[in-house]
Amino acid sequence: MLENYSKQIKKILKNIKIGDRISVTRENRIYEGFLMPKTDTGDSDSIVIKLDNGYNISIKYERGVKVEKLKKPSRELSKEGFKALEFDSSKPKVALISTGGTIASKVDYRTGGVYALESSEELLSNIPELKDIVYIKDVSSPLKKMSEDIGHKDWQIIAKEVAKHINNNKGVIITHGTDTMHYTSAALSFMLKDLYKPVVLVGSQRSSDRGSTDSFMNLICAAYVSISDIGEVGICMHGTTDDHFCYFIRGSKARKMHTSRRDAFRSINEIPLARIFPEGKVDILNKNHKKRDDSKEVVADTKFEPKIALLKVYPGSDPEILEMLVKKKYKGFVLEGTGLGHVPTFADKSWIPTIKKIIKDGIPVVIAPQTIYGRINTRVYTNLRILYNEAKAIPSEDMLPETAYVKLGWLLGHTKNIEEVRKLMTTNIAGEISERSTIDSFLV
Amino acid sequence: MLENYSKQIKKILKNIKIGDRISVTRENRIYEGFLMPKTDTGDSDSIVIKLDNGYNISIKYERGVKVEKLKKPSRELSKEGFKALEFDSSKPKVALISTGGTIASKVDYRTGGVYALESSEELLSNIPELKDIVYIKDVSSPLKKMSEDIGHKDWQIIAKEVAKHINNNKGVIITHGTDTMHYTSAALSFMLKDLYKPVVLVGSQRSSDRGSTDSFMNLICAAYVSISDIGEVGICMHGTTDDHFCYFIRGSKARKMHTSRRDAFRSINEIPLARIFPEGKVDILNKNHKKRDDSKEVVADTKFEPKIALLKVYPGSDPEILEMLVKKKYKGFVLEGTGLGHVPTFADKSWIPTIKKIIKDGIPVVIAPQTIYGRINTRVYTNLRILYNEAKAIPSEDMLPETAYVKLGWLLGHTKNIEEVRKLMTTNIAGEISERSTIDSFLV
Repeated sequence: MLENYSKQIKKILKNIKIGDRISVTRENRIYEGFLMPKTDTGDSDSIVIKLDNGYNISIKYERGVKVEKLKKPSRELSKEGFKALEFDSSKPKVALISTGGTIASKVDYRTGGVYALESSEELLSNIPELKDIVYIKDVSSPLKKMSEDIGHKDWQIIAKEVAKHINNNKGVIITHGTDTMHYTSAALSFMLKDLYKPVVLVGSQRSSDRGSTDSFMNLICAAYVSISDIGEVGICMHGTTDDHFCYFIRGSKARKMHTSRRDAFRSINEIPLARIFPEGKVDILNKNHKKRDDSKEVVADTKFEPKIALLKVYPGSDPEILEMLVKKKYKGFVLEGTGLGHVPTFADKSWIPTIKKIIKDGIPVVIAPQTIYGRINTRVYTNLRILYNEAKAIPSEDMLPETAYVKLGWLLGHTKNIEEVRKLMTTNIAGEISERSTIDSFLV
Repeated sequence: MLENYSKQIKKILKNIKIGDRISVTRENRIYEGFLMPKTDTGDSDSIVIKLDNGYNISIKYERGVKVEKLKKPSRELSKEGFKALEFDSSKPKVALISTGGTIASKVDYRTGGVYALESSEELLSNIPELKDIVYIKDVSSPLKKMSEDIGHKDWQIIAKEVAKHINNNKGVIITHGTDTMHYTSAALSFMLKDLYKPVVLVGSQRSSDRGSTDSFMNLICAAYVSISDIGEVGICMHGTTDDHFCYFIRGSKARKMHTSRRDAFRSINEIPLARIFPEGKVDILNKNHKKRDDSKEVVADTKFEPKIALLKVYPGSDPEILEMLVKKKYKGFVLEGTGLGHVPTFADKSWIPTIKKIIKDGIPVVIAPQTIYGRINTRVYTNLRILYNEAKAIPSEDMLPETAYVKLGWLLGHTKNIEEVRKLMTTNIAGEISERSTIDSFLV
């Protein structure tokens, strides 16, 4: 079992197996984590453990090194199967849709790799709190993908799965990878017509078998949101780096703003819809939300035009890229403009003539802010007036570039009439455009 | 003068000219701003004023409307010429380089358009505080551009202008448009070799003739930074929405994060270098900065390869765009990856085979985080290990995508050897890579 470890290491590791939780004390420092296998190329005379932050550390043997076997963290996923959680049918009925991602993964301590969990039931079995909140009976798993691989066809599958279950449930929880969760939440915001129940996307930044995992608390908070009075699509993730509360963020206003922090998801240009405490309190923060109405029937309206592009302009960017993509039959563009919504206008690399020509040919070009926060302005400067009034670019208002991209694809799935696209693009459909920006929503 | 205004409006505007500052009282509400000209298409029976927030408002005439002529704000730029500020040669000598942008603009109240100021002296003439802080003798204006039009040739011009003046001055202040100021600050960070004096980029979100302008305080704080002990390129702009203090943010770590707020510039993945109060106090916040050394000679090293692109990956993004640009002889790419630095790997639209091929052909592909905050991780997930270890993509570490783009162009200006580019790209040259991320630098 302790293959490739040296003789003296094997000796101090007696009664300990790969995957056991141990502490190693060396020179008065204590390292705690799971014992990892040793590759045949590594130094056989040091102990490798996986720390709770997910990194492996190699601790060189020397005299005085002490190793102790620890109990597993109470939430640790069992490696020897699991016992499914028994729900209480008197609780509010909620559906669970699993699509993959870190929240549905665990580390294999024999190889160090990350693997998908057997099933959603395996994840739920570790969160007994859930049965005191909701009755989860409809569990489905239409996808098993890390979210970097999710695309518009997956959004359509998820939207249809939601529509299938939500009319017989108080709400729906969707577990999803975090990388592109905000693209999916924007897509569902447009695709779920007549939605007046909570559709709660939830993921985790650390897999469920790590000491620092956020998946249990995120799921508990998501359960509370799913039976709340908020009738919208949103993302439920940690609000801070500790386990204090989660935010529920409107699906069309959410963005992953950090590669790794547990509180990476932020509400952009408006305050979050609600703050949810794992003890069950749901604080409504943004009163401007759709209220639950269980009498409405949700329909999935999933038509989508995928042949569109999201591009950024920047110093030196060349508009020839637009012409190349038009030749490839692209049907629409979202450009991330600088500042208030500018594109370069200088000399031979001005974007305005190209944009003007494309729009004249009936292909919509939307400008969204690359600053992320704030709102496009079509008037303050001469270059803006030329771009929006003469060349007829479409401003995204205070919509996120990612949301504008998803909305454009969804609109073009329904109509190719550029004037209709222009009108709907600048009209609020799913909370994606705020009428006015509030001062307290910057970098919150 | 009051052309196109109705008779009764002309009557209540007696003794008032276009461009005068007035208050208009109607139905107990008071509007304050500058009287604007009336176009021949507008309603001749309403008064148009430009509010201090920059917007025009049209106030319909009715009985009881009262108009009062007000004094101009004390800082208002004179329309009838200006008297140049007389500096005191006993103060520390600092050079000023003007490149255009909002800070060098004013509104023409006859047309409502924004126009460039005559000269930097006109701007300075409104800030008498400056002569108590610095002795500005070398004033130059190598460019007059709004920043959406600035490109690598402009960076080269500015870098050479800085090198020309800085060795005879305590520091250099550069006035610049805000849209792409962080690209320029990144470029100067790499192009100014052996810099151990402050190079302070400063701009404004509201032009100097608006009541809410940030240009005066930003310039006063920039003057204090320019004689401080920080030997780096940085951006000096409002730290909050009020006039409390400015931040000085490292040039390779700064980003415009809001379309319009005065405190739009933020320090990403590290705390700002300093907080500067307009009364002159310079609070060093980040002790990890280069100290002033007046004995060093600065050299401009401006070689730059402009044929590179900054692209974003997203659900549905097609790697064919890379192939198209390679055919167009592009020499390098920065991709904004999702989450920890992923690209889509699914089915026929996986980016990895294309990236692998391009890199094998000697063209560097750098991945930077589209989350903006955080750091690329090359190991946690299988897809990451394939992308970085097998396909050999280059991680930007915790570098901003915009900074990675500028750095790649600068490196490729010096070498086309991909292994050298890889090594230097992941090595800290100008503060662009932090060794470790601090918890207090997220959304600050």
